[in-house]
Formats: sequence, structure tokens, C-alpha cells
Amino acid sequence: MKSFVNYDQNSDFSIYNIPFGVAVFANEYIACCTRIGDMVIDLATLYDYGFFDNIEGLNENIFEAYTLNEFIELGKPVTKAVRLKIQELLAENSKLALDEKTIEECFFNIDQIRMMMPVHIPNYTDFYSSIEHATNVGKMFRDPANALLPNWKHLPVGYHGRASSIVVSGTDIIRPKGQTKPADVDSPIFGPSKQLDFELEMAFIVNKNTEMGDSISTAEAEDAIFGMVIFNDWSARDIQSWEYVPLGPFLGKNFGSSVSPWVVTLEALEPFRTASPKQEPEVLDYLKFEGNQNYDINLTVFLKPENGDENLISESNYKFMYWNMTQQLAHHTINGCNVEVGDLYASGTISGEHPNSFGSMLELTWRGTNPLQLKDGQERKFINDNDTVIMRGHAEKDGIRVGFGEVSGKILPAN
Amino acid sequence: MKSFVNYDQNSDFSIYNIPFGVAVFANEYIACCTRIGDMVIDLATLYDYGFFDNIEGLNENIFEAYTLNEFIELGKPVTKAVRLKIQELLAENSKLALDEKTIEECFFNIDQIRMMMPVHIPNYTDFYSSIEHATNVGKMFRDPANALLPNWKHLPVGYHGRASSIVVSGTDIIRPKGQTKPADVDSPIFGPSKQLDFELEMAFIVNKNTEMGDSISTAEAEDAIFGMVIFNDWSARDIQSWEYVPLGPFLGKNFGSSVSPWVVTLEALEPFRTASPKQEPEVLDYLKFEGNQNYDINLTVFLKPENGDENLISESNYKFMYWNMTQQLAHHTINGCNVEVGDLYASGTISGEHPNSFGSMLELTWRGTNPLQLKDGQERKFINDNDTVIMRGHAEKDGIRVGFGEVSGKILPAN
Repeated sequence: MKSFVNYDQNSDFSIYNIPFGVAVFANEYIACCTRIGDMVIDLATLYDYGFFDNIEGLNENIFEAYTLNEFIELGKPVTKAVRLKIQELLAENSKLALDEKTIEECFFNIDQIRMMMPVHIPNYTDFYSSIEHATNVGKMFRDPANALLPNWKHLPVGYHGRASSIVVSGTDIIRPKGQTKPADVDSPIFGPSKQLDFELEMAFIVNKNTEMGDSISTAEAEDAIFGMVIFNDWSARDIQSWEYVPLGPFLGKNFGSSVSPWVVTLEALEPFRTASPKQEPEVLDYLKFEGNQNYDINLTVFLKPENGDENLISESNYKFMYWNMTQQLAHHTINGCNVEVGDLYASGTISGEHPNSFGSMLELTWRGTNPLQLKDGQERKFINDNDTVIMRGHAEKDGIRVGFGEVSGKILPAN
Repeated sequence: MKSFVNYDQNSDFSIYNIPFGVAVFANEYIACCTRIGDMVIDLATLYDYGFFDNIEGLNENIFEAYTLNEFIELGKPVTKAVRLKIQELLAENSKLALDEKTIEECFFNIDQIRMMMPVHIPNYTDFYSSIEHATNVGKMFRDPANALLPNWKHLPVGYHGRASSIVVSGTDIIRPKGQTKPADVDSPIFGPSKQLDFELEMAFIVNKNTEMGDSISTAEAEDAIFGMVIFNDWSARDIQSWEYVPLGPFLGKNFGSSVSPWVVTLEALEPFRTASPKQEPEVLDYLKFEGNQNYDINLTVFLKPENGDENLISESNYKFMYWNMTQQLAHHTINGCNVEVGDLYASGTISGEHPNSFGSMLELTWRGTNPLQLKDGQERKFINDNDTVIMRGHAEKDGIRVGFGEVSGKILPAN
């Protein structure tokens, strides 16, 4: 498929992608949008010009909104149809290709817009679904011989995170202060975190509201998932390790999490499905699933100090996940917990087998014992003030590339 | 102070209370309201008749709303002034007392209305602030000799809960299904929870939005707390005990939590302030506070099986809390975690020293080993299907009574 819009062949935003987001256009107005190459397309104005007239269920201009929530709540039949219509409009020789006036009004270079949070997130859950990450953490903090806890292979372990502090890529994150208890002191001390870390994750966004008492089966889950983003679950390891027993992560996590601005639909990711790791022992019936439920998505992490060098520090892949999205959603709702449109469910840190595929500084430097060397000769055990962490993700197969762009965040000194 | 409205001297809703809530009036419309005795007063209509005309900052009819969020966001100067104005209007010989037409339009008997969720809750956190509860749980599940974990006396331990499944009193709760691993089997099994429990808690509601990076000190906290409710944090102990290590409670809690419908303001609770338990060892500076920050609020729990008997099963008091609200909010924000209007922060189970003051079946029956005897001769280790749990709370001093009414919920069989 070719587009009338020219874009680099390495663009994450090929005509096969058609992601959704929300942008401030020319500092003047806010609307839902899509992207191809470096062009961002205002969908609200495109709607006004009648380009979506024949899509059943789309009977008001749902793109005139500050979030995608109302759009995604329309459900898969509508959101799939809209995506395909946009793809058709962006193809060579389309009706739109010849319409200079509409193009002039609706198409903006990426430099002319500012991306916002794509969805309002009513509830956020973080899973812990990479066996390599859970094993690494278990080795470091518990027992190297029994790194995985007894429940880990029976259920996708997860916990509730803080929705209020999830921000869009490009938002600075202030280093948190808090209580820590270094091993060499008797009582806890107070100050800025000395072990600030990132966590390389992906997250999916739900498109429906369910009633309390209802469950979403693994077979129904795909229909309830609008799409995915890259997710940086910033973590303060020193705060976390002192506070987290017995009720889990709290202030070590809730000072900020960052998401990439473009939601890539499951439909765009369809060509990149792949088999899951074998689950042994066999899971309970409600966690069984059909077909290929993992996705082959290349993930990279870059650490950029003040000098501007982008240091590649991790290369991982979403396909390593032991527990897949359909299992996560089925587990989360098996007890009748209700979901809401815009809910965000994150994967947990995505580490691979090899040390260069670990998804956090904690693992990459093995708790600071093996610092990373940067291009300019500096070392890092954890993240310094004024460091920027950039995560990128894309899938590629048979000449088709679909990607997420990036999620980026800079750490500012503590207040 | 006397009111022109007659009410029972044991009413929680005396003229000293003036709580806020949201109701469906006569099945026709929804509005914010207050209550005195058994009369519920539609504040939106009262506003339309000009009774709040002189309150600065209240320049639109904020009571025409489905939640209290916009009202409480106006902040203490306005919400205090509104409460005092209502108190003045409800007093003997007030302007309102003589206005039969307004009374006829705005006053409804409690039987004519249906209470709704008082606030939209963007974020919900549950603390673990009763030393007796934490000690009991530690004795049962960990080490009787070292029941409290090392961090417990240094910080108010807490975790993020699920906001989507918080419902108002009177909403039925469906027994959750899930994975459990009884001690006598090798692999986990699936089915309805066999250890369904309540947790007697109170919760406070925040009236402001803060920016990420900002903190609320213990001295500033009272100004950020609109008021309190009674909170039942339903728990499935068998699901919880299998899932919760290492990331904390998840499906064992998120199938439902219940709140009382009337938010009692901190101002109404002012006469019931009392000293806190001594905190030893001394806490870090950011957790130090001035004055009496506990509140003497009597709490009772009743178990009502299908026969309708109300069995009193616990008598506790909010004053037992080791960590107070100002400390909880200061701790939650010390790392820069932002709060949002309507956020709900729950205390954790409120147990006292004596076994009849324990705030959960887990503790009352000591993990089922010492079942409760009900009036009709039945036993209970945990909560059965079709049992209703009712929690009530009120403060009383010098002839002044201020209460919360009740939070009630019935357990329905698993789907």
C-alpha cells in the first residue's frame, strides 16, 4: 500500500499504522488526530468535511475532544472502520489526495503541534509479567535459588498503581524525596531518592465499561482492548525497598509514570503476532487462551545525559512476556472487578534473557554493582538529575513497519 | 442550638452535623443535599431561591450536580460558609423556618429519596494505620514474636486500591471467584471465595488538585480534607493470601468497597478531637504534627443474616489509629505524588485492643478458629451469601451528637 504523503521508509507511522492521539494544533485548539510519517492529521476537521459520513455509529464529531475516551468507547466495529477509512483516505489517488483545501486545513507538520495525554485513565494496574524480570528481582532481593515466588507461574501478579501521576512523553519528572533505610544505618533517613530508575513497559488501553460481577474471558479480551502504548514506570528503588513489605509498591512508584502519545491499535499490530513462551505448569482454565497472543515488538531504551548523547542501554522485545494481555485482563476481571473506558494495564518491566535486554537500571547494573559506561566516559548506577530516558518501540515484518515513536522523560532535581 | 425541624435526640444528623451528599429526589432529579434528622434537603433548589446569595465564591448553582466534586473544590472558606449558612437556616426562627413554600419544595423525607455516591473518586488509597490490626495480622500470617514489620512505626504503610469498584451503601456485592491455594493441596484451585470478609474503616476525601512535585505538609493537610465517610473494604482472604506476595492486595480487594453516603465535614467533627497514641520511636520531621489529630468516633459493626437479626459483632473507635490523617496525606505527597479533588484515602481496618473491638472477621474469629455465635444459634467464620454487613459511626460529647449513619452491603452468591 502506498500513501500520497511522503514519509521515510523507517518511519514508525507508515500507512499500515494509523495510530490515534490528541494534540494541541498550532497552539490554538485541541482535537483527536492520527499521524502518517511526520504529518499529524486533525480528525475533527476531517469529520466536519464529511470524510467519515458513511461510518455507522459515528453520528457526532467525537474527535472534537480532549481525550480519545468517547471515541474508543464506540467499540471495535466503529474504531476499526474509522481506521480503515483513514487508511483509504491516505492512500495514493484517494479522494483526499486531490483535495488541497482539506489537506491544508487538516494536515500539520509534527513540529506545529504538541501531543497531549491520549486518554483519561480512570484506573491503572501494573502487572509483573516478564519471567526474566521477576527472576532477576527475586535473585537480587530474595533468594537466588528460589527467585520466583510460588504464585508467579499460576497467575499474572499485578497491583494497582496511581492514575493521577501518569503523564505524556516529554513531561519532566521531579526526583522524589522520601524515607529510605540504607543497610548501614539503624533508623530510616529522609532525602531525595538516590536510586532513581526507569522500567521499560508496554501498556494496553481498554475500550469498555463492565458491570461489577462481570468477567472478560481470554476469548473476549481482544475485543475489549483498543490499543497499546509504551510505558515508563519510573521507580525509586531505595524508597520502594523500604516501604513495599507487605502491601506492595507505593511512593517508590507513584511520583510519575510516562506514556507515549500515540495509541497503536491491536489491528495495526495484527501482522506481528507471535507465539507465547510455553507456560509450565499448565494454567487454570480461565487463563487458557487460543492462538498467538504475543506480539513481536522491538523495544529500545536510551539514556541521554545533559551533553545530548543518546546512549543505547537496552534492547528488549515485548514477545518475551510470559503472561499475555488476554490473560492479564481475564485474571483482573475473574473476581468481578469492573473495568472502565480508558483504563491502562501495564505489562511490568520487559526484560529478556540477555543482560543487554534488561528493562531497568536495577537489572542492567545489577543493583548498582556493575555501572553502565556512557559514550562520554561517565558512569551510571541509576538515573542522574537532568538525564533523559527515551524508550522506542516498533514492529517490522515483510517490509511493513508499525511503531510507537517514543516515550521520553527528563529527571529534574528534587524540589 | 435548636432546629425548627424535629428530630430524635439520638439522630446522627443533628443541627451540629450538616453533612453533604447527592440524592435522587422523588425518582425525578439529582442534586446535592444535606440532612437533618430524617429530612433531606435539596440544596440546588434552595440555591435557586436565593438562600446562598451572600456567600462569596459560590457564584453558580454548584449543587445541580451528580457529585460533590465541584462544590468541595471551592475549598474550605466556601464550604465552611455554606455549612454555617445551612445551620443558620435550619435553626429555630430562621428566615427559612417561616417559608412554607420553600420547605415544601426542598425538604424530603429520607424515604422519598435514594442516596448516590457522594463524590467521583479519581484515586483511592488504603492505609494500614491501626497498630492493633497490623499486629493481629502479623501474628496470624507472619511471626507472633515480631508481628509488626520494621517499617511500620516509621511510616504510614499504604497501597493503591481500585477506584472503579467503590459503591455507595445499599449496593449488593457479588461474592468474588478466584484462585486460592489451600494449605492441603499442591496446586491452586478455582472457585468462589470461601473466606469473604469485611474491614471496618473510615476514609477522608480531598478537596484540591495539586501539581506533581508538590507536597502537602501535616500543617496544611486539614485544609485539604473536606470530610469523612465510613468505609467497608470487602476482602476475600483466601484470594488475598495466595496473591499478595510480593506486590500487595489485588483481586482479594478490588471486587468491591462500600462507602456511607453522607460526607461529614472536618468542621462538624471538631468537638471530637482527641490526642493520638504516642508514637515511639519518634517519627521523621515531615511526619510530625501539632495538636490533637485523632477523632473520638464510636464505630459498630452488625452482621445481619437472612432472618433480619442485627448481630452486634464489633465495637471499635477511630481514635485508636496510630497514624492520623494529616500524617497519611503528608506521607502520600512527600514524594511529589499529586492529589485530585475527590480522592479517597482510607484508614485501614480499625481494630482496638480488646477482641470485641476487632474490625474484621479475620481477627474476630482469629482466622476462623473461633467462630462468632449469632443470636439464632448460627455460627460464622466469615461472611455467608445473603448476609448483610452494616457499619455505623457517631461521635458524642456534651450532648452534641454528630454521626455518619451507616454503610451497608449484602453479599450475593458468586455469578
